[in-house]
Amino acid sequence: MSDAQTTSPKMTTEAMEAFLEREFPQVFGAGKLYHVEAVGHRFARMRCRYDARQLRPGGTISGPTMMTLADTGLYVAILASIGPVALAVTTNLNINFLKKPAQRDLIAECRLVKLGKRLAVGEVSIWSDGEADELVAHATGTYSIPPER
Amino acid sequence: MSDAQTTSPKMTTEAMEAFLEREFPQVFGAGKLYHVEAVGHRFARMRCRYDARQLRPGGTISGPTMMTLADTGLYVAILASIGPVALAVTTNLNINFLKKPAQRDLIAECRLVKLGKRLAVGEVSIWSDGEADELVAHATGTYSIPPER
Amino acid sequence: MSDAQTTSPKMTTEAMEAFLEREFPQVFGAGKLYHVEAVGHRFARMRCRYDARQLRPGGTISGPTMMTLADTGLYVAILASIGPVALAVTTNLNINFLKKPAQRDLIAECRLVKLGKRLAVGEVSIWSDGEADELVAHATGTYSIPPER
Amino acid sequence: MSDAQTTSPKMTTEAMEAFLEREFPQVFGAGKLYHVEAVGHRFARMRCRYDARQLRPGGTISGPTMMTLADTGLYVAILASIGPVALAVTTNLNINFLKKPAQRDLIAECRLVKLGKRLAVGEVSIWSDGEADELVAHATGTYSIPPER
Repeated sequence: MSDAQTTSPKMTTEAMEAFLEREFPQVFGAGKLYHVEAVGHRFARMRCRYDARQLRPGGTISGPTMMTLADTGLYVAILASIGPVALAVTTNLNINFLKKPAQRDLIAECRLVKLGKRLAVGEVSIWSDGEADELVAHATGTYSIPPER
Repeated sequence: MSDAQTTSPKMTTEAMEAFLEREFPQVFGAGKLYHVEAVGHRFARMRCRYDARQLRPGGTISGPTMMTLADTGLYVAILASIGPVALAVTTNLNINFLKKPAQRDLIAECRLVKLGKRLAVGEVSIWSDGEADELVAHATGTYSIPPER
Repeated sequence: MSDAQTTSPKMTTEAMEAFLEREFPQVFGAGKLYHVEAVGHRFARMRCRYDARQLRPGGTISGPTMMTLADTGLYVAILASIGPVALAVTTNLNINFLKKPAQRDLIAECRLVKLGKRLAVGEVSIWSDGEADELVAHATGTYSIPPER
Repeated sequence: MSDAQTTSPKMTTEAMEAFLEREFPQVFGAGKLYHVEAVGHRFARMRCRYDARQLRPGGTISGPTMMTLADTGLYVAILASIGPVALAVTTNLNINFLKKPAQRDLIAECRLVKLGKRLAVGEVSIWSDGEADELVAHATGTYSIPPER
């Protein structure tokens, strides 16, 4: 997108992880599976650690785990772009599950295709670490951005 | 839908809960939040118990909790219709978050709008218990049904 | 939904058709395929006349014809609920195609699951006339409602 | 994706346009708005010519025009990848409308994120010609591929 390469993110990866740990302890607290790997303007790359507890019958990482990864990643991409000033709220999430994930970490790359004053829309590609050429899931999400206080 | 009223479900609510507890202990095991309230042909009604641990900043039940409820409920509606013979796999989930849930249980009613040999599609209405006239979320999902063994 | 039965629509079916004919002549003008059959608060029922010109290879009514029917029907349900005062804009449409339509008219029933000040969300069930017990398509849509002038 | 750069398409752009003109005369026939600009393995770039007849109130290119462009482009990307041997059928289309299109041609780039034996899934970015850095719409679609005859 337009200025993704030239505009600096509003938060570093470290500041982002500290913010998430404080605000979402149930997802990003001790022993957490979800990690922020990199942030940029309108961008985030996330990692979800492989953990046998996530498995559903058949040995697959669960759908809800991937939905949480996509939703969280887009939220992080928005925070990285506008700073931790507002509480964006998910209004829509659409996810396609494409193939059975391997028994390894998942990587999610999240890009905002729109960053308006009131609305942000992004897309997410998810793959098994080391197997980037065949996605395991693809998602899009819409977020409502409340007026600045 | 067509025969929803006249066709009996393939599993009772009790058999369903026992099956889910055995197959999905991480979602339906001890201390579980998700419960099957009723099943029918092409139908399931689910309850998600209110639990402060689910809360995200602002006191809202988390999006992933509602996605899990919708996904699980459609899976249950499929099992109720075809029996526990096959392992249906989610291929798409689309969810709209409509209003902030109250701090109480969530109810989800799940109906299959298509039940084919290979594909099932359903829709889910989610509301805060006692407030059925304004939905907090609405979802649709698609499931691939593997050939019988 | 809540008050669907008790609240009167803001426009009659006749006023709605006249409005659409004037504002959307390319869809609702002379020789039009799309018709408003009934409107209510948060509700519209539409008919799309069968026309061989709509056919795609294999004799199926085209996907875009059904998408237009769903999108238009939700727009009509919004107008019926808030009156012709504002220009609602589609922000999301998600449609599942469930079975091959018959070579006859399509009926679409459209219901708003949320009608907020800024956002409306609805769902649409589409079937071949006379075959209401198996849907040919199911859609959901989100509409942005501009502030009143 | 994986082999998009190294695998040749199964049809040239010219063969594709001739095929579409013959099979979908109502969309690709004389005076048509929709054009195939380029095809590749798992890829298609489409152009929709600006035409005042497409306009809806407010001077915007209509939603159904963009849905048709997205749906057609993904269909073309599938044909380019597997050849004109089978009749792929859309099972899901999800589209986000991001900003009001300019009064000029639309460009759509369509990429398959999955190309399985039975199912293909793709994503589409749509922008106003010359304004590629802000999308006007983004879509994803799922297609069922019938068994080879």
